[in-house]
Amino acid sequence: MRVVVPVSGSDPKTRLAAVLDTDERLLFAEAMLGDVVETLAAAGYTPDVVATGPIDCPVPVTVDDRGLDPLVNGLLDDTGGDLAVVMADLPLLTTEAVQRLFAPDTDVVLAPGRGGGTNAVVVRHPEFRVDYHGASIRDHRRIAREIGADLAEIDSRRLATDIDEPGDLAEVLLHGDGRAADWLADAGFEVVAEDGRVGVTRN
Amino acid sequence: MRVVVPVSGSDPKTRLAAVLDTDERLLFAEAMLGDVVETLAAAGYTPDVVATGPIDCPVPVTVDDRGLDPLVNGLLDDTGGDLAVVMADLPLLTTEAVQRLFAPDTDVVLAPGRGGGTNAVVVRHPEFRVDYHGASIRDHRRIAREIGADLAEIDSRRLATDIDEPGDLAEVLLHGDGRAADWLADAGFEVVAEDGRVGVTRN
Repeated sequence: MRVVVPVSGSDPKTRLAAVLDTDERLLFAEAMLGDVVETLAAAGYTPDVVATGPIDCPVPVTVDDRGLDPLVNGLLDDTGGDLAVVMADLPLLTTEAVQRLFAPDTDVVLAPGRGGGTNAVVVRHPEFRVDYHGASIRDHRRIAREIGADLAEIDSRRLATDIDEPGDLAEVLLHGDGRAADWLADAGFEVVAEDGRVGVTRN
Repeated sequence: MRVVVPVSGSDPKTRLAAVLDTDERLLFAEAMLGDVVETLAAAGYTPDVVATGPIDCPVPVTVDDRGLDPLVNGLLDDTGGDLAVVMADLPLLTTEAVQRLFAPDTDVVLAPGRGGGTNAVVVRHPEFRVDYHGASIRDHRRIAREIGADLAEIDSRRLATDIDEPGDLAEVLLHGDGRAADWLADAGFEVVAEDGRVGVTRN
């Protein structure tokens, strides 16, 4: 099965602009991508990285500036619906989580992300197509139902934790031990107690 | 093993005050507690609910107004360190997630929550004690290390999703199918697309 990691190489992670400048956001996106690619490789998968622009990565990168939906749906066309898509901003990913993602022998496997997203999908059905806008997990459940595909969902905090907003950075420092966690620590970020959940501060 | 669900019966869920009034917050807390208690029961566990004040619940409630740390550490004293603690605000809990929590045969099992919390802990060691303030997951890892306890962590989005803030409510509507999800829907809450992750609106 082909495993694709799509990533933005052009002005990535704009929702982190309040805490990281443009260059830093690219470097942090590259660190997260490195974590994802290395973890997939450690689990026995060889991912294809497809970026909208130049981005540094441990494996060769294909540049393709189609949007996410046309890109993935084009690859679903090309492969006859035999494709896995794993997002590039999952720096807490572990080999165990990857193995759990590929374990169910169902037509479609979804890994929900926080806030209605779909952080990973495994497709073994010729008719399944993606729609990443809005509450995509709901749309993907509906699409699977409409084509009669049997569906599994993976209950993984590590697959669910995509890093998009400043409030997400604490998760990387608390639970990560790879490139992204190292990059944040080197950039001076630390976990601080706030009212309720912890946050981060930068020295 | 004794399984305890501690819950605030006095002015619960204050961080939801922007979207729910005082009475509603108690009703919503009761709905979430009902989900947790029923799911534990369905998984074969009989939880003891310990509340700081009166709260409606499908099982008998013991009122104990000690703070969370003195309460749990007192129970660890009483039981010789043979205790599980599951938080009351985990309405996405499933029987599978409960089974995974109790599966590791380690001295200590931790289920991290979003933002550094510890949403569930299973203790089989006489010296382990809890400290729920701040980034408790870090403290609990440290305490386990200091007493030489072997430790497992459960990678579960459902165990990680405690409901404390308005931004968490979308998770209940997107992924829940129990009392809490029904309560929110009956109260007029709906998922809406926002910039990035989805949120909720109330009709």
